[in-house]
Amino acid sequence: MNTIIHPSTPTGVNIVPFVSVDNMMRLVLHVGVETFLAELAAYIEDDFRRWERFDKTPRIASHSREGVIELMPTSDGETYGFKYVNGHPKNTKDGLQTVTAFGVLSNVHTGYPALLTEMTILTALRTAATSAVAAKYLAPENADTMAIIGNGAQSEFQAIAFKALLGVDRLRLFDVDPSATAKCAANLEGHGFKIAACRSAQEAVEGAQILTTATADKQYATILTDNMVGSGVHINAVGGDCPGKTELHRDILLRSDIFVEYPPQTRIEGEIQQLDPDHPVEELWQVITGRAAGRTGPSQMTLFDSVGFAIEDFSALRYVADKLSAAPYFDELDMLADPDDPRDLFGMLMRAKGAD
Amino acid sequence: MNTIIHPSTPTGVNIVPFVSVDNMMRLVLHVGVETFLAELAAYIEDDFRRWERFDKTPRIASHSREGVIELMPTSDGETYGFKYVNGHPKNTKDGLQTVTAFGVLSNVHTGYPALLTEMTILTALRTAATSAVAAKYLAPENADTMAIIGNGAQSEFQAIAFKALLGVDRLRLFDVDPSATAKCAANLEGHGFKIAACRSAQEAVEGAQILTTATADKQYATILTDNMVGSGVHINAVGGDCPGKTELHRDILLRSDIFVEYPPQTRIEGEIQQLDPDHPVEELWQVITGRAAGRTGPSQMTLFDSVGFAIEDFSALRYVADKLSAAPYFDELDMLADPDDPRDLFGMLMRAKGAD
Repeated sequence: MNTIIHPSTPTGVNIVPFVSVDNMMRLVLHVGVETFLAELAAYIEDDFRRWERFDKTPRIASHSREGVIELMPTSDGETYGFKYVNGHPKNTKDGLQTVTAFGVLSNVHTGYPALLTEMTILTALRTAATSAVAAKYLAPENADTMAIIGNGAQSEFQAIAFKALLGVDRLRLFDVDPSATAKCAANLEGHGFKIAACRSAQEAVEGAQILTTATADKQYATILTDNMVGSGVHINAVGGDCPGKTELHRDILLRSDIFVEYPPQTRIEGEIQQLDPDHPVEELWQVITGRAAGRTGPSQMTLFDSVGFAIEDFSALRYVADKLSAAPYFDELDMLADPDDPRDLFGMLMRAKGAD
Repeated sequence: MNTIIHPSTPTGVNIVPFVSVDNMMRLVLHVGVETFLAELAAYIEDDFRRWERFDKTPRIASHSREGVIELMPTSDGETYGFKYVNGHPKNTKDGLQTVTAFGVLSNVHTGYPALLTEMTILTALRTAATSAVAAKYLAPENADTMAIIGNGAQSEFQAIAFKALLGVDRLRLFDVDPSATAKCAANLEGHGFKIAACRSAQEAVEGAQILTTATADKQYATILTDNMVGSGVHINAVGGDCPGKTELHRDILLRSDIFVEYPPQTRIEGEIQQLDPDHPVEELWQVITGRAAGRTGPSQMTLFDSVGFAIEDFSALRYVADKLSAAPYFDELDMLADPDDPRDLFGMLMRAKGAD
């Protein structure tokens, strides 16, 4: 099923497995999207438990007027991974993606890349899986209803992940563009949800124990205002993820217990950029390891201020690499020069003349 | 001649051209290694002229006991490039390369990757081309004889680059391992050199106007001592390129006018890590643009303390990308998800089920 670039070449040290977009889709469908999200969530949770073992570098961003290109590296001392990701909001009007991504996993002991993969689809999956992991610890008990405000590319993945991990099966959808809501509802047909398409954010939050905001505008927006949010809910704020881009009114933040991935990054990119730099927040990994409390009671308002962190991409790369051993949805790329004598790169080059 | 992964797919926005090791060798041989080095040197010189236009980030290193994995990004505001490179000295004894590398070039305006290529061979070429560019400005006039101390993977590329740019056609080779010298001499046969294999570094430098050191030991070594180096020579120090790895005796540095790529990086990684942090150095780009003097007379001793900088990799990526339009030595990778509706990533995934 997978296409091999050089079928005659046995897999050698020069070869890096490559997961194309086509193969990523095949892999996800082969595993099943709900199972994929549940298994990926387990990898993310495992890596959050080992949080202290990771190199945590802030992402390296190259900004331009139109967007940003970022490299997000991390390592657990055994394996190294990085993601390349861009963010260009104006791409959409040229028929291009706002965000594209690819990633690499390497062996720390040799420095050799062991996997190259598309990560546009994979990032959508890991973002949803991370939200669901956080909600396992933060959402009210037996929550079965989620409002999703912003019904774009991330919305269906959020829905499936919350169903897989928490059993959420009632959705209340709202988007300023009703066609986005229609698309989301149609895509989720047959996945076991009871879906209400709502005409306002206010209507969407009615009766929902979990409020997911996943809008795309690059601006200070107020998707939720204070009066819309009752006590006891869990807010899963996914869309605000860069300086100048937020979704929640500041008053909501002041009433919530706030949980984040990596404070130095979230204070710049997350909802909490609206707050004082020393406003108290909890780190999700500390909740998962039991060092900090998650939800403590039914009236507590919890907020997961998600921006996406390199370790989640690392977990996703690790999961895909492990899956490939049983489901070989990859091509083999001849990416690493491998002369017989490491000192004889020039000789290898010259001898290629005869071989061609 | 190039293998296409999905021959039936017309090149679309989802496709990234990929230059494998095989295709890089074909491209270099198609262009001719001497022409390739000369043309690449012109790209490097062009980019050094535009030095101030570049983002200059120090490389992002992930260190382990056995080695280092680095990301080297840069951008000129139009194009973004980065190189992944590892350095693992102990790899050699397991039959692996000490250094492997690959690189990516992207469009700053869309964030979309436009090229993925092997860079192990390409880095060897750009290192030699950069040395030759520096020597154009720093070597004594009409220099025709070069000593090369350290006859490993970099040596032949240095020789060919200096022939292409400066007309150097006499080589004096030395390596602590005579088989390395024999390999280098054999590889350069038929390339128009008069070659002397020498039994010591002392013998190699006799009568040479240019001294190239390209040894590989990861330690403080003294390949050249002060008494071996006469006035008027140009030293091209290529091998010392990380903290704890140097090739020249400190006294040589004190007698030389020192030229570097990017001082903040060279003070950590280059020969000048042996000197005070405020020891005066000149930047190569300032010499190339005429803002600083290069060689000022026949008795001046010049030293190019080369460590390799991201802009040189950027030039190499740019050169390869330009070459590919006339010489299509690449594969097409389906690397970027491209749903018809950018908001409908999930729908694209689900529809792939039917397509498979």
